[in-house]
Amino acid sequence: MKILIDAMGGDNAPDAVIKGAVEAIKEIDSEIILVGQEEVINKKVKEICDVEKLSDISSKLKIKHATEVIEMGEIPTQAIRSKKDSSMVVGFDMLNKNEGDVFISAGNTGALLTGATLLVGRIKGIDRPAITTMLPSEAHGFLLIDAGSNTNCRPINLIQFAQMASIYLSDACEIKSPRIGLLNIGTEENKGNELVKETFQELKQNSDKYGINFVGSIEARDVFSGAIDALITDGFTGNVFLKTMEGMGKLVKKNLTKSLKRNILSMIASIPTLPAIKRFAKTMDYREYGGALFLGVKRPVVKAHGSSDEYSFYCTIKQAEAFAKSKAVEHLGRGYL
Amino acid sequence: MKILIDAMGGDNAPDAVIKGAVEAIKEIDSEIILVGQEEVINKKVKEICDVEKLSDISSKLKIKHATEVIEMGEIPTQAIRSKKDSSMVVGFDMLNKNEGDVFISAGNTGALLTGATLLVGRIKGIDRPAITTMLPSEAHGFLLIDAGSNTNCRPINLIQFAQMASIYLSDACEIKSPRIGLLNIGTEENKGNELVKETFQELKQNSDKYGINFVGSIEARDVFSGAIDALITDGFTGNVFLKTMEGMGKLVKKNLTKSLKRNILSMIASIPTLPAIKRFAKTMDYREYGGALFLGVKRPVVKAHGSSDEYSFYCTIKQAEAFAKSKAVEHLGRGYL
Repeated sequence: MKILIDAMGGDNAPDAVIKGAVEAIKEIDSEIILVGQEEVINKKVKEICDVEKLSDISSKLKIKHATEVIEMGEIPTQAIRSKKDSSMVVGFDMLNKNEGDVFISAGNTGALLTGATLLVGRIKGIDRPAITTMLPSEAHGFLLIDAGSNTNCRPINLIQFAQMASIYLSDACEIKSPRIGLLNIGTEENKGNELVKETFQELKQNSDKYGINFVGSIEARDVFSGAIDALITDGFTGNVFLKTMEGMGKLVKKNLTKSLKRNILSMIASIPTLPAIKRFAKTMDYREYGGALFLGVKRPVVKAHGSSDEYSFYCTIKQAEAFAKSKAVEHLGRGYL
Repeated sequence: MKILIDAMGGDNAPDAVIKGAVEAIKEIDSEIILVGQEEVINKKVKEICDVEKLSDISSKLKIKHATEVIEMGEIPTQAIRSKKDSSMVVGFDMLNKNEGDVFISAGNTGALLTGATLLVGRIKGIDRPAITTMLPSEAHGFLLIDAGSNTNCRPINLIQFAQMASIYLSDACEIKSPRIGLLNIGTEENKGNELVKETFQELKQNSDKYGINFVGSIEARDVFSGAIDALITDGFTGNVFLKTMEGMGKLVKKNLTKSLKRNILSMIASIPTLPAIKRFAKTMDYREYGGALFLGVKRPVVKAHGSSDEYSFYCTIKQAEAFAKSKAVEHLGRGYL
């Protein structure tokens, strides 16, 4: 397998991208191709690796030169159309030509989604590709779809999200008959806005036809219990959900740190608990769940968080390899729908 | 002031209601009137208080007899219309007759909101009353409106929510020119669903006319930073937001406890940090923020959480007194809008 990585995308590019790639390469079977300005990448790789390490990894780490960079603030369609030699567009071209099995970028999200849709193309039968991300729960976590790409949805979009989630989870995560929950503000049939009520009725009546193990509506406070494998929602609500988690996580961290560091005594008292606090922090660390998969396009595309650090890239690369190996995208394309 | 409390409402009624009332009564100026089955309430009060305490509080704690109880599963409109002698309907009647200054209930939410709208009535100029709740932030917290009563909204509803929040926060919480943020999935003008985009344009152009200090769109991950005093959203998104916080809070608590109790060593090690962990838990304890205010009806109505314990009731009673004293509802009614 070959993993294509946009070396120039993200707030911490290219440093964090390259460091993450060097870390991950030891643990994966695939080859990594860093796409971007060759000279810049080469210099960074040499800074990071000593001669011995360099010779160790050189057979698995390649560079594909691309002169331009799509910046974070650029208008997506325009950037994709005009910057033909950008690391992002070159990455998509390689993916299309089968010169890579999955493409990762932490760059301009709009440009990545637009590029994936325009250059890679939608899978036949999928009206709206959607961004998805794994989130923590008391069990093995759950997949959120749509995490933010489609702000205005119709019931058919949510149903297709459910189908894509089902195929991805069974193929790539080996979850048999994944349990699909509809994000709602109550579990009774009359609860929810129009979109949710209509989707609920359609899924309740025809989930077999769609090949979905629909477990009903679920409230946001219950999704972390391990009762579902995928949470279906429109991109507006999904993005609010995701960012509420993120905000709460930050608030919790600040309050915990403040409580532990209130005075010298509590600081000293906290030292023996540091391993436990670290274990706790690890269970709440989203970076381990990797990047966001863009499901519904013809080839595997992974969006890494814009502010990804080297550890995030490391996790995302490992996840991207599993995603590509699973052939979930091929299954989606082969008329599962 | 007189605080009316539905003694029969909520999962832990009447025990938790009465205990909370007995706790709060020492610290407030107001009289408390417990509405419900006199015999049951009397028995409970005697169980909780010894003779001395009873004589201490008896001048401030009254009972208003009501024979019926609206149960949690009942259909709101039907329950309100048929159970004329329920603790909830009697409470509303007393509120209407000025026999109390604020009404608190932890009972059937739908029935409470329906009762407030039908029996107490909407303030002229307010199309949709909304449920609001204070939530924690790094500063003094912020008000969420709508927290779940209106699942389908138009821009005018959100604008009225912003107006009500502004008046409540300046009157009852003494916040000068409260900062109003619109819950969105980005801060750029083109971000959001149709509702949010239209509301944004209207508020951007006419916030002066509406008397609102509009600070723009805000993402869910940033609302806890202390940058806003009120968060405006439709009831569907607001309820998802609120319950995501709740779910994350539970997940954090479980993971932290699990990490601290993993083995006997980490349990012993955690003992000196317990005061700090407790301080932390306190900062994340929603009960301190009290109940949910139903803004937009002619008299002050407060919804306590269905699963409120005695401490929640204690906090809610204190908050309800401040709410009634502030005269925010009168100001809303006096044509501020």
